[in-house]
Amino acid sequence: MSADVISLRTRGPQPSLAPMLALTASGMNSVNSVILDRMQSEIPLIPALAGHLIAGGGKRMRPMLTVAGAELCGYQGTRHHKLAAAVEFIHTATLLHDDVVDGSEMRRGKAAANIVFGNPATVLVGDFLFTRSFELMVEDGSLKVLKILSRASSVIAQGEVDQLTAQRKIETSEDHYLEIIGSKTAALFAAATRISAVIAEKSEAEELALDAYGRNLGIAFQLVDDAIDYDSEAAESGKDKGDDFREGKMTLPVILAYARGNAEERKFWEDAIAGFRTEDEDLAHAVELINRHACVEATRERARLYAQRAIDAISIFPAGAARDAMCEAVEFAVARRY
Amino acid sequence: MSADVISLRTRGPQPSLAPMLALTASGMNSVNSVILDRMQSEIPLIPALAGHLIAGGGKRMRPMLTVAGAELCGYQGTRHHKLAAAVEFIHTATLLHDDVVDGSEMRRGKAAANIVFGNPATVLVGDFLFTRSFELMVEDGSLKVLKILSRASSVIAQGEVDQLTAQRKIETSEDHYLEIIGSKTAALFAAATRISAVIAEKSEAEELALDAYGRNLGIAFQLVDDAIDYDSEAAESGKDKGDDFREGKMTLPVILAYARGNAEERKFWEDAIAGFRTEDEDLAHAVELINRHACVEATRERARLYAQRAIDAISIFPAGAARDAMCEAVEFAVARRY
Repeated sequence: MSADVISLRTRGPQPSLAPMLALTASGMNSVNSVILDRMQSEIPLIPALAGHLIAGGGKRMRPMLTVAGAELCGYQGTRHHKLAAAVEFIHTATLLHDDVVDGSEMRRGKAAANIVFGNPATVLVGDFLFTRSFELMVEDGSLKVLKILSRASSVIAQGEVDQLTAQRKIETSEDHYLEIIGSKTAALFAAATRISAVIAEKSEAEELALDAYGRNLGIAFQLVDDAIDYDSEAAESGKDKGDDFREGKMTLPVILAYARGNAEERKFWEDAIAGFRTEDEDLAHAVELINRHACVEATRERARLYAQRAIDAISIFPAGAARDAMCEAVEFAVARRY
Repeated sequence: MSADVISLRTRGPQPSLAPMLALTASGMNSVNSVILDRMQSEIPLIPALAGHLIAGGGKRMRPMLTVAGAELCGYQGTRHHKLAAAVEFIHTATLLHDDVVDGSEMRRGKAAANIVFGNPATVLVGDFLFTRSFELMVEDGSLKVLKILSRASSVIAQGEVDQLTAQRKIETSEDHYLEIIGSKTAALFAAATRISAVIAEKSEAEELALDAYGRNLGIAFQLVDDAIDYDSEAAESGKDKGDDFREGKMTLPVILAYARGNAEERKFWEDAIAGFRTEDEDLAHAVELINRHACVEATRERARLYAQRAIDAISIFPAGAARDAMCEAVEFAVARRY
């Protein structure tokens, strides 16, 4: 038996999301139908507000992971369409509440829902999408899936509160940061992929492998997201650049720059994270300090570690187009600059 | 076979909640243990904020209905303890989000959570309690119960958005108002009582009877709540008196006063609901107009109609202490002045 090691690409052609998109195209069509159908309500404000965010695009990464996982498992049914939509509704609900919590102004390249519709409607429509996601899961009828997704939802909520607690706290450690992103981001990635193995009635080992794939990809994804917010070479993302900085979020680039900085630099970070340095020139100085200590690159390096773990996790599945696409999607996620 | 009509008491001794409290005392002890146990989290802000509201009292009416329903059905197990706690968590989550949405300052006689802990934490801990309620239901493991409570949650969320849409709209009709309170309040009352019949494996007819009891009691309860906000004879409630007026909420006393008013009075209501009359003297004038047209009494009269329906609904259950207590609790709910 020969070892089946798949290594993370560090040079050569840029990884592409195209194989992943091709793998999931048909499934995602069905998922998108469920999403559009089930965000409806007799209360017109609900589809208006939900549609502002949902029709506004987004990569639909989490439901795509459910669909890809189903392909990897050779699943032939249609249950994953509803469940993937449920996953996306959980994600959408947290985005809406995040934007209220952060007072965000931009999301997915346009005005955030809270700016257009106000905080009250945004909170309540988030609640609606969350309840609708549970209705979809209950319709599916698997208690095992319900357990995985209700647990993930609870972990996400706790991660969000934990992040809020750590905000403006310069003493936040890398370990604490990893715990936060493990909860607020990676838990849903893990659940999204894991449930595919459940509906395909795969073994416990395969279930855990898909869980590990999603979890590690989720951590890598969030690390890169947090690096991009300080990456002077990155393109504009859908949200305002420097949001993390102005909100005093303790993301890894800041944690590393603070750890690696001299006394004067540390003083700057203490003031900035406490909220006393919010001008454009302060953000520019922050980016300069982060560059000086190569913290974007260090954050991306950590992301590559988790990416490799994600890829290794699914090596127990048979080689083929599905596994290749899922591996390249991981490479794509950590290489992206937007 | 003799007819078994139970009539709503309109005179005689004041109805008491004591029989209901006695009926549910032992069960509620267990429910309260589950509530305290399951609002815990490793993130200290979560029990701190949740405890501020939960330990702050509240009547625990909804879980009490689940426990009472279980007694009425002769249920001998313990499943209703977790499920009643899940019901209370759903309710608590909506209270936290309501207070953010309304910018409330008082709740249950003390500063509202959003005032003490801020809107961001209040939104996120509300989300946590909501996810925790689903975890409790999933642990119970009945798909039928999950369906009832996830549907109720979705209806509540839609009712909350509907109420927001109707806010500051003087043209809101009594029918629309009844739809709103049917969703935002009565749906959870109905689900709370209905699930008792499910776990007790009662007939469909008994399930629907308990659903109707809860739904009609919920409507009656909300009508009385809305009447009290303008009742010059009512004692201080836990929330600020006149909140509904200042928030431009179209509750039944206002709908009736507007319908019954002359041109000058209607002009006042239009200005007030639009938000141009928020002084203490405006509230006093509103109370005077509502008294002039006997709108508190008319609202209470509607409440008594729904109360009678609630009582009639459970007449199919055998007479006894449980049914008596549940009937008297309805009478208590509509007679209360606080």
